[in-house]
Amino acid sequence: MRTAFPFAAIVGQDQMKLALSIAAVDPSVGGVLVFGDRGTGKSTAVRALAAVLPEIEAADCLYHCDPARPDEACETCRGKAKPRRARKSLMRPVPVVDLPLGATEDRIVGALDLERALSAGEKRFEPGLLAKAHRGFLYIDEINLLEDHLVDLLLDVAASGENVVEREGLSVRHPARFVLIGSGNPEEGELRPQLLDRFGLSVEVKTPEDLKTRITVIKRRDAFERDPTGFVAEFEAETAALRQQISAARQRLGDVEVSDESLEKAAQLSIRLGTDGLRGELTLMRAARALAALKGDAAVLWPHLAELAPLALSHRLRRDPLDEAGSTIRVARALGDLAAA
Amino acid sequence: MRTAFPFAAIVGQDQMKLALSIAAVDPSVGGVLVFGDRGTGKSTAVRALAAVLPEIEAADCLYHCDPARPDEACETCRGKAKPRRARKSLMRPVPVVDLPLGATEDRIVGALDLERALSAGEKRFEPGLLAKAHRGFLYIDEINLLEDHLVDLLLDVAASGENVVEREGLSVRHPARFVLIGSGNPEEGELRPQLLDRFGLSVEVKTPEDLKTRITVIKRRDAFERDPTGFVAEFEAETAALRQQISAARQRLGDVEVSDESLEKAAQLSIRLGTDGLRGELTLMRAARALAALKGDAAVLWPHLAELAPLALSHRLRRDPLDEAGSTIRVARALGDLAAA
Amino acid sequence: MRTAFPFAAIVGQDQMKLALSIAAVDPSVGGVLVFGDRGTGKSTAVRALAAVLPEIEAADCLYHCDPARPDEACETCRGKAKPRRARKSLMRPVPVVDLPLGATEDRIVGALDLERALSAGEKRFEPGLLAKAHRGFLYIDEINLLEDHLVDLLLDVAASGENVVEREGLSVRHPARFVLIGSGNPEEGELRPQLLDRFGLSVEVKTPEDLKTRITVIKRRDAFERDPTGFVAEFEAETAALRQQISAARQRLGDVEVSDESLEKAAQLSIRLGTDGLRGELTLMRAARALAALKGDAAVLWPHLAELAPLALSHRLRRDPLDEAGSTIRVARALGDLAAA
Amino acid sequence: MRTAFPFAAIVGQDQMKLALSIAAVDPSVGGVLVFGDRGTGKSTAVRALAAVLPEIEAADCLYHCDPARPDEACETCRGKAKPRRARKSLMRPVPVVDLPLGATEDRIVGALDLERALSAGEKRFEPGLLAKAHRGFLYIDEINLLEDHLVDLLLDVAASGENVVEREGLSVRHPARFVLIGSGNPEEGELRPQLLDRFGLSVEVKTPEDLKTRITVIKRRDAFERDPTGFVAEFEAETAALRQQISAARQRLGDVEVSDESLEKAAQLSIRLGTDGLRGELTLMRAARALAALKGDAAVLWPHLAELAPLALSHRLRRDPLDEAGSTIRVARALGDLAAA
Amino acid sequence: MRTAFPFAAIVGQDQMKLALSIAAVDPSVGGVLVFGDRGTGKSTAVRALAAVLPEIEAADCLYHCDPARPDEACETCRGKAKPRRARKSLMRPVPVVDLPLGATEDRIVGALDLERALSAGEKRFEPGLLAKAHRGFLYIDEINLLEDHLVDLLLDVAASGENVVEREGLSVRHPARFVLIGSGNPEEGELRPQLLDRFGLSVEVKTPEDLKTRITVIKRRDAFERDPTGFVAEFEAETAALRQQISAARQRLGDVEVSDESLEKAAQLSIRLGTDGLRGELTLMRAARALAALKGDAAVLWPHLAELAPLALSHRLRRDPLDEAGSTIRVARALGDLAAA
Amino acid sequence: MRTAFPFAAIVGQDQMKLALSIAAVDPSVGGVLVFGDRGTGKSTAVRALAAVLPEIEAADCLYHCDPARPDEACETCRGKAKPRRARKSLMRPVPVVDLPLGATEDRIVGALDLERALSAGEKRFEPGLLAKAHRGFLYIDEINLLEDHLVDLLLDVAASGENVVEREGLSVRHPARFVLIGSGNPEEGELRPQLLDRFGLSVEVKTPEDLKTRITVIKRRDAFERDPTGFVAEFEAETAALRQQISAARQRLGDVEVSDESLEKAAQLSIRLGTDGLRGELTLMRAARALAALKGDAAVLWPHLAELAPLALSHRLRRDPLDEAGSTIRVARALGDLAAA
Repeated sequence: MRTAFPFAAIVGQDQMKLALSIAAVDPSVGGVLVFGDRGTGKSTAVRALAAVLPEIEAADCLYHCDPARPDEACETCRGKAKPRRARKSLMRPVPVVDLPLGATEDRIVGALDLERALSAGEKRFEPGLLAKAHRGFLYIDEINLLEDHLVDLLLDVAASGENVVEREGLSVRHPARFVLIGSGNPEEGELRPQLLDRFGLSVEVKTPEDLKTRITVIKRRDAFERDPTGFVAEFEAETAALRQQISAARQRLGDVEVSDESLEKAAQLSIRLGTDGLRGELTLMRAARALAALKGDAAVLWPHLAELAPLALSHRLRRDPLDEAGSTIRVARALGDLAAA
Repeated sequence: MRTAFPFAAIVGQDQMKLALSIAAVDPSVGGVLVFGDRGTGKSTAVRALAAVLPEIEAADCLYHCDPARPDEACETCRGKAKPRRARKSLMRPVPVVDLPLGATEDRIVGALDLERALSAGEKRFEPGLLAKAHRGFLYIDEINLLEDHLVDLLLDVAASGENVVEREGLSVRHPARFVLIGSGNPEEGELRPQLLDRFGLSVEVKTPEDLKTRITVIKRRDAFERDPTGFVAEFEAETAALRQQISAARQRLGDVEVSDESLEKAAQLSIRLGTDGLRGELTLMRAARALAALKGDAAVLWPHLAELAPLALSHRLRRDPLDEAGSTIRVARALGDLAAA
Repeated sequence: MRTAFPFAAIVGQDQMKLALSIAAVDPSVGGVLVFGDRGTGKSTAVRALAAVLPEIEAADCLYHCDPARPDEACETCRGKAKPRRARKSLMRPVPVVDLPLGATEDRIVGALDLERALSAGEKRFEPGLLAKAHRGFLYIDEINLLEDHLVDLLLDVAASGENVVEREGLSVRHPARFVLIGSGNPEEGELRPQLLDRFGLSVEVKTPEDLKTRITVIKRRDAFERDPTGFVAEFEAETAALRQQISAARQRLGDVEVSDESLEKAAQLSIRLGTDGLRGELTLMRAARALAALKGDAAVLWPHLAELAPLALSHRLRRDPLDEAGSTIRVARALGDLAAA
Repeated sequence: MRTAFPFAAIVGQDQMKLALSIAAVDPSVGGVLVFGDRGTGKSTAVRALAAVLPEIEAADCLYHCDPARPDEACETCRGKAKPRRARKSLMRPVPVVDLPLGATEDRIVGALDLERALSAGEKRFEPGLLAKAHRGFLYIDEINLLEDHLVDLLLDVAASGENVVEREGLSVRHPARFVLIGSGNPEEGELRPQLLDRFGLSVEVKTPEDLKTRITVIKRRDAFERDPTGFVAEFEAETAALRQQISAARQRLGDVEVSDESLEKAAQLSIRLGTDGLRGELTLMRAARALAALKGDAAVLWPHLAELAPLALSHRLRRDPLDEAGSTIRVARALGDLAAA
Repeated sequence: MRTAFPFAAIVGQDQMKLALSIAAVDPSVGGVLVFGDRGTGKSTAVRALAAVLPEIEAADCLYHCDPARPDEACETCRGKAKPRRARKSLMRPVPVVDLPLGATEDRIVGALDLERALSAGEKRFEPGLLAKAHRGFLYIDEINLLEDHLVDLLLDVAASGENVVEREGLSVRHPARFVLIGSGNPEEGELRPQLLDRFGLSVEVKTPEDLKTRITVIKRRDAFERDPTGFVAEFEAETAALRQQISAARQRLGDVEVSDESLEKAAQLSIRLGTDGLRGELTLMRAARALAALKGDAAVLWPHLAELAPLALSHRLRRDPLDEAGSTIRVARALGDLAAA
Repeated sequence: MRTAFPFAAIVGQDQMKLALSIAAVDPSVGGVLVFGDRGTGKSTAVRALAAVLPEIEAADCLYHCDPARPDEACETCRGKAKPRRARKSLMRPVPVVDLPLGATEDRIVGALDLERALSAGEKRFEPGLLAKAHRGFLYIDEINLLEDHLVDLLLDVAASGENVVEREGLSVRHPARFVLIGSGNPEEGELRPQLLDRFGLSVEVKTPEDLKTRITVIKRRDAFERDPTGFVAEFEAETAALRQQISAARQRLGDVEVSDESLEKAAQLSIRLGTDGLRGELTLMRAARALAALKGDAAVLWPHLAELAPLALSHRLRRDPLDEAGSTIRVARALGDLAAA
């Protein structure tokens, strides 16, 4: 892969960076949807993410299974005689997989290994991009242009953590736990409302209006393209600090307390905003916990919830014909009411 | 398969749990349709079902035939020289098969075994998901997004108890008696009215409005995901009790009496509600019988019918332009009228 | 095949039973179209038909040719040196073939035998469902959901009595004389008007309104499913009587007289109702003759015509914008006028 | 093929029989289009045609070339060393080929012989239905339901007398001179206006209104189906006479005189009716000449033109918004005007 | 190929004959579009063209390259060691290739030679119709019914003079300089406006109104079909004269002078008519030069331009909402204005 | 390839020539979109470009990698043991690749090498047109007629500089940095607005109105076609000068200064015009820098920005319902306002 623009060198776009960091700390918050104007660096940010993620310990199998999660081990790992713990595992980078436009369903879910089938007359599964993305991130630029059935499929797998393949005489099931990151410009085609709800967090990015910011962006972009290696080196310290912060947050995550009061606040917010189901508050709770972990706080408190509510809830609102305010404003108002209550 | 959330740990959603239990006692009530908001645990409940089902006795054949039903034995079982009864059979779990989005018709109904065809030049049938689901449950999440012809096909097979394959030079017929469970969110695409009628029971699930329930759901969900094994163990006793209750009900089922008076009540309800055909009352009678068996009652009585009428009849009503009440209210009204009569 | 519900145990639905019996006596009346509400036992009746049909004498060839019809013998039968009559033939049940939803055109009309082609490099025809149905019945449930071009094809073959296959380098022609039985619910998709005309007879079935009938249906249905073998035995005598009646009618058929006066009545009816072409009265004449044979009458008389006119003509009426009465009423009125004339 | 209903036994339908006889005498009049109500014996008439056609002399090649037309000989015939005339030829029936619904383009135009290609690795052309129909008739029932591109293709070949195949690496050209006969019911789908013009003659058939005719039709139809062989024998003398008449007309055809006056009349008719191009009058001239030959007349006269003008011209009229009369009436009026002039 | 109707025997249709002759003299004028009523001899004229074209000198390669144009030699010709000039070449007829309806893209542009690929495992290009048509004419009857992407493709190749094939792992480029002749009836489907502009010349043909002409056409047509050989012989002298005239014009073409004044007139015409781009005047200049050569004139003068302007410009006009006159009249008016100026 | 018309001989069309020259100096300005009337020499200019581009130094690999950009080396180049710098490289022409209409996705992105797969049973990637175009230009005439998903794909690859193939069991990634040049006539089909933004520069070409220019174009065009070699020679000196100018500009490019003031001007222009994202000003800055390099200027100044703003910004404007002026006028007005400010 070509050298990526450093995450730390991204100017502005704080919400997008926050959402990606949260997902890096607790992937169970679910996917991240980034939408907004073209040319605002959405893809750049996602592709930059890889460099700030701490390495992971992985089994030496097709799916780089997590030795700490025997319940989701692949067939190979389960089948091995020796206790898994005793076997050697490797440190490897978190996968950040790009789903290119035009990728076929076969390549995504995996397919019959044709080469093998033809040469050895043997039916063997050849893992696809979902396998590659296990334990990491799967990025789809212009997700609104992807065929609906592929989006459905990706969200299903992301939700269940398993890829089940039933086709061409294959019947395969393997772990595929990843954070789906989709970006798109709603002007080029909307996402169906029911898909929105399946993303954990959403952020909107905009063209910066500020002259100085714009000039800084242009200069950094030009500098990077003229000398990628030098530019990356310049930001290496900041990158390392971020990586360290995420790593620490992950370890603290299990210890962050979530009081019933916080859960009640999250539920009240959801009820007030009329979101369907409980996904909104479950996501909000988890994201707030990750934020507390990132900040080194011991418990989830109101400010954590308030900071993340727009990201966790605003894409889950139903259109309210009597309330013409945008969803961001409605979330802000509900936060205000609740803080006042 | 990954560890499932325990059936007993599901908070609320009583009608859905009732419908699944009824179908577990008497699969001939026909499929169960679960619809409602996203994020209300529909899939969780179905996937949890497997653990509460008693094991079944099965022949050692491709379709795990029922030794007690020689009339629906597969060709292998029929062809065997020895009397079937004399042959050894196995105890095995009731199959609960997941039909993944994107499963092809080939994988569903079964197909030519290509590997065999290519290597040995022999035409052999490779059973599909319908064969796997024989004597158990076939679950389709987002059934409203499945292509119509596949839904038709699944309902047809579920109704006839046989899978007939006529394609690619194959002419195969095998038993495929299963309960079809479909879940979906009507906002994302309606089921054609004529499909509704082919499901035995239907239930609607909603987001709980009650703060305490919501917090319990969130906490259990989070606890389960952090430590699946421990969480399951915590509910093991309740799970075993449920399993025992279903097992007992199955044995009692043949002895539950259904009086002509009860049948008359069921018929009067259907006529009053104007449902087409006789499927409504046939289902209602069977479901009420299964409920009586679950409760240990000796005969079907009015309360059994009244409890199940909404599940058996409300999805079979025609839209009445003069009566704007929802179908649930219309069923309740008819029950009231009949009880008063 | 699984045990079928006994024809004799069907409660009500007299017109449907009449139409099927007529077609059993004289298949040249053309197909039977059964339409009406779901859950009214349409499929049950057709599947029950097989048991009441007398066995047929058949050549030992791929198409079980009729030894009494050398003019429609298949190529094998024609090609044989010995005079056909001298060769041994077999008694076998009348085929009642089910056309499953999703059957491909290949399986219906027959196709290249791929196994043979691949292993022996030889082009051989593998007969399809049309061949299987020769001299019997071909049943299509939900015919209104079948693709139009398949319905066209089936009606064409049914009309010509021959299946002509011109594809994949095959050029095959074999006898395929059968009665097409289609059932469907017009609410789920109408049949194109021009297809209606190609069915010999049509009947409409409805949900019985009568409480007692409904209870009997439910009880029989439940009794059958609990003990199919016992239930069938209970009705065996009635079934045998029906089989005997049909067998006798077939032998008498050639001797039933059709006077010019009867033909004139049939023609007058058709003219009065404005049906296109002469298919209506040809069918009416044949059906009336078969009815007379069933009843043991020596000639076709007015009551035979009157009983069958609704089945033979009502689906052939054009929509008359000045006459809003349903087609059944219009046929009844025309019968009244003619009887009065 | 099954025994066909005798051409001579067809009751009424004189125009259809006239058009088919004309085409049998001079195939260059172009195709015949028969349209009208279902059930009026259109297909019966065409299928009956074969029996009244005199046998033809044919070369012993794939395309049964005409020894009298060396200019359209196939490659095999051209390639032979011996003068064609000296080679032996055979007498064979005129082909009357049925194009079954669902015939693929491959089977129609011919295709690569796959068997040969796979076994011997050799590219050989396998002739299709167009080759079979050379020098005869190609019949398409329900031509209005055939895909447009196939109709185009058939008309093109019929017009050029050659089948040119450029596909699958094949480049083949063979004679395919035949009369295309299409039948259809315009209510089931109209023919595009531009196709109409490409048929030489058109006739419309209607349900007979006359009671006696109807009864005769029904009786003959029933008699034929009960005893095809006997029925055909009954009409053998009439059939032979027709065959003889056509044979004689063919020999006389070259000697029938067509005066400039007759051509002028034909042209005046076409101009008066405003038909595009000259196909109308060319067809009218040829058809009238064939009629004269059939009647044994020495020259084309006004009555011949008048009898055939409706068949040759009425399907070539443009819709005239100022003249609401049907095309038959407009042709009749033009004939009257011209006769009066 | 069957005997073609002699070009010289075509009655009337002078503009069509002029356009075809111009293209025969200078193929760089671009394609010719012939449109008008069916049955007016469009196809006959194009197919007759072959006989009046002088033979060409050609290399002995797959594409019959022009020895005088080394810049467009095919790979084989370029690759040969010997100087091309020194190699022997052949005289051969100008190709006039018919693109049959239903020709696949493969056969048009050429494709992988499957036979070779399968037998020898070698990837070799098998040239298609575009290769056959190199240096000649490619005729498409009913071009308005051809799929748009094929028309685009043909016009592209005709414009560039090269066929570039990039598919199935082939990457081939060969010369394909030909005149595209399309005919069609605009009533059966219009050509997209942007395609019109890509044809060099266009002519409209109409049914002759004159009685005498019509009779002559009919008589010649009938005479030709009864005795093709004799009829062709009758016109042989006229055919030879035409061939000689074209041959002479080709040699003179390089010497015809085109003054700046003539170019200015052509440009003024185009500007006055508001045609887009410069294709109109480039074509007009070339066509006028070819006409001068045909007439033996030394320079392009006003009458040459005036005679060809309608053919070169009238299909390039935009619809002018303020000028309801047809394009022919607008061109005539512009010619008048300019002559007067 | 056939001889191309010399770039230097193109009359007028200054903006198009400017845009192509800018892209030749700094390919990172992104693609060039040329739109306008047919017949205005759009394709001619692009195809002429190749001759004025200085040769490039390239590694001896499938993708002719740039030895100066090890960060984008292909797998082969990376894999080699020897330091890349030490290996010999070749000088070769800049690729200018034509994407022919009808090119399949396979040929564009590359595909499995079928020949190899079949003969050696080995899965090998066969590079497509994107590989061929690496480090050069990819030209698509009539880009508005290309299927949307192919345009998307091309723009994606052009933007990322990498071609990622995930299909048919292949997983390949190779450098593909090229300038996409699209031309088209908006009247024949518009480009989707979101595609416009992804082209760096856009120019509109028009038919020249000036008589003298038109005559010169026609004369040059005719002269070139009559004697391509001689014509090219005539312009060789001018061509060499252009090539030299571009070569020099490339070397100077890194030294051209871009002051914050210039960046501010670019940003102000974009804000004033309301373009989304920052692509507009990034392109404007780069294009202005390339222009300065072409002119030999040391820094980007206002005139450079003003000259290129219409090319870099006018296709990025949103339609403003209150401002009916065309985008060119709006850009000009913004330039005027800013100059005045």
